[in-house]
Amino acid sequence: MRVLITGAAGMIGRKLTTRLAKDGALRGRRIAALDLHDIVAPKTPVAAGISTTIHTGDLAAPGAADALLRTRPDIVFHLAGVVSGEAEANFDLGYRVNLDGTRALFDAIRVAAYNPRVVFTSSIAVFGAPFPPVIPDDFHATPLTSYGTQKLVGEALLADYSRRGFFDGIGIRLPTICVRPGKPNKAASGFFSGIIREPLNGVEAMLPVPRSVVHTHASPRSAVGFLIRAAEIDGATVGPRRNITMPGVGVSVAEQIEALGRVAGVKAVALIREAPDEAVWAIVKNWPTRFEARRARELGFEAETSFDAIIHAHIEDELGE
Amino acid sequence: MRVLITGAAGMIGRKLTTRLAKDGALRGRRIAALDLHDIVAPKTPVAAGISTTIHTGDLAAPGAADALLRTRPDIVFHLAGVVSGEAEANFDLGYRVNLDGTRALFDAIRVAAYNPRVVFTSSIAVFGAPFPPVIPDDFHATPLTSYGTQKLVGEALLADYSRRGFFDGIGIRLPTICVRPGKPNKAASGFFSGIIREPLNGVEAMLPVPRSVVHTHASPRSAVGFLIRAAEIDGATVGPRRNITMPGVGVSVAEQIEALGRVAGVKAVALIREAPDEAVWAIVKNWPTRFEARRARELGFEAETSFDAIIHAHIEDELGE
Repeated sequence: MRVLITGAAGMIGRKLTTRLAKDGALRGRRIAALDLHDIVAPKTPVAAGISTTIHTGDLAAPGAADALLRTRPDIVFHLAGVVSGEAEANFDLGYRVNLDGTRALFDAIRVAAYNPRVVFTSSIAVFGAPFPPVIPDDFHATPLTSYGTQKLVGEALLADYSRRGFFDGIGIRLPTICVRPGKPNKAASGFFSGIIREPLNGVEAMLPVPRSVVHTHASPRSAVGFLIRAAEIDGATVGPRRNITMPGVGVSVAEQIEALGRVAGVKAVALIREAPDEAVWAIVKNWPTRFEARRARELGFEAETSFDAIIHAHIEDELGE
Repeated sequence: MRVLITGAAGMIGRKLTTRLAKDGALRGRRIAALDLHDIVAPKTPVAAGISTTIHTGDLAAPGAADALLRTRPDIVFHLAGVVSGEAEANFDLGYRVNLDGTRALFDAIRVAAYNPRVVFTSSIAVFGAPFPPVIPDDFHATPLTSYGTQKLVGEALLADYSRRGFFDGIGIRLPTICVRPGKPNKAASGFFSGIIREPLNGVEAMLPVPRSVVHTHASPRSAVGFLIRAAEIDGATVGPRRNITMPGVGVSVAEQIEALGRVAGVKAVALIREAPDEAVWAIVKNWPTRFEARRARELGFEAETSFDAIIHAHIEDELGE
């Protein structure tokens, strides 16, 4: 089978590519070819027997998506998108990449008329405050960012195109991915990873919000697991509601820090400095805290069950034990 | 002030135009000019002191929406759209008119950069079965038609463009409008009006579904009232959730018929013939029954409080008493 990944150069895209190259199979079939697309060239994975083609460019450009679909990939992972902060700062770029790019890809698949599985990464950014203490699966999507709006539009198109039989789509709403590997970034959510990642490296980390903040996390490894599950699930068991809130570990920052202490000791915890930041707090206080995610669990999507497990996944996957 | 109405040649558009011409004012200001747009030329209302300009064409055509915005209307009523059945039968037309047309209009307002009030008619078609017995205001939108999908996208854009300050938008989700004047049409919902309208005219009407079917209705007069209220409401009281499910009268078909009996007597009721139609039933059985619509009521949107009142409104407005 042939697999297309858009956004293949991003953090999740790279990890998905590595996982597919390692597994060598999906839905019980051997992966013969990988098409990797991004705005910059993704790295080619080393994998015997998998023919990899690298594509670069802007999905929203005329003809670009149609060209990508020429090889009729059996599974399309649509991960491409500009992130929340960028979509908010640059209105035109966000709508072009996240809305027009997604619609162009979906329309190219529609026109190709062969009904592949499409897996779309949506986000809990489709939700907007105020929230109940635990967000149920049937809670309305009222995004408070352009990014969340663009993801919601992608979800709506995915469901309609699936209903019409143009493709067999599954949208997965990812929680915050933690622990993100690599350098600190300027995302408002960056500290959730930073307060774990930096101390594990013996480096100080800043905590800009109160320890009482509750948030839901899943590891990069779980995110890849969600994508694989979304590719493999029987569409008939999903029904017409194709966009599913993923599970995760809902914990307070204090509980994150307690888990760090259990895994890495008091010296690691001592590297966390309180550094209240009103700008970050103004954003974070409007974020959802916990999700029911009952449907996702019933459909076989699995996240970690403790924040300790999230830290262990980071150590195993990034720090080579 | 200047008022633009798209879809001005449609049933609601005509009634809104007539109401505005009669009132001569909106938001406490005199209406100096009306811009009426539709794919076919709307009728010019007779109103002293209001300068009316007729515009025809396809809102999604390049430059069309920008041209409409040149006069900087203070209030934009965006009613234009192809109906549910047409959007389902003709994929390209539905997406072009309902999604691209709406986005073109919203973008033209964004580019004009003067922050007018925009009133957008959405629909309860944004909801898709299964439903709770009463749909709360925070129930998720999972449309089961392309029309509902396109309305949902319009809602999402409206909320984001309002949040960014491009305009001050209010989306109103209309329930089924009943009693629709005029000839029977082929809409699956047509019988809800037909079983009242035809007997009042001494004509037989077919009932294709069981009398136990419960559905929510508002009169055309109420629909116009919703639009006026949406134009006049203080946006600050609405907050970021700009799309509001309108109230209505939730009744069973049996209760509709009882109301007809009270208003027009047993002779009218005797003109209703049971004519079960599996195709209509297959559609109608997935429709929502009742809505909480608490927010709308709190924000001053008023519907009839009985189906008798809906029938009286029809008699007064269409049958000249």
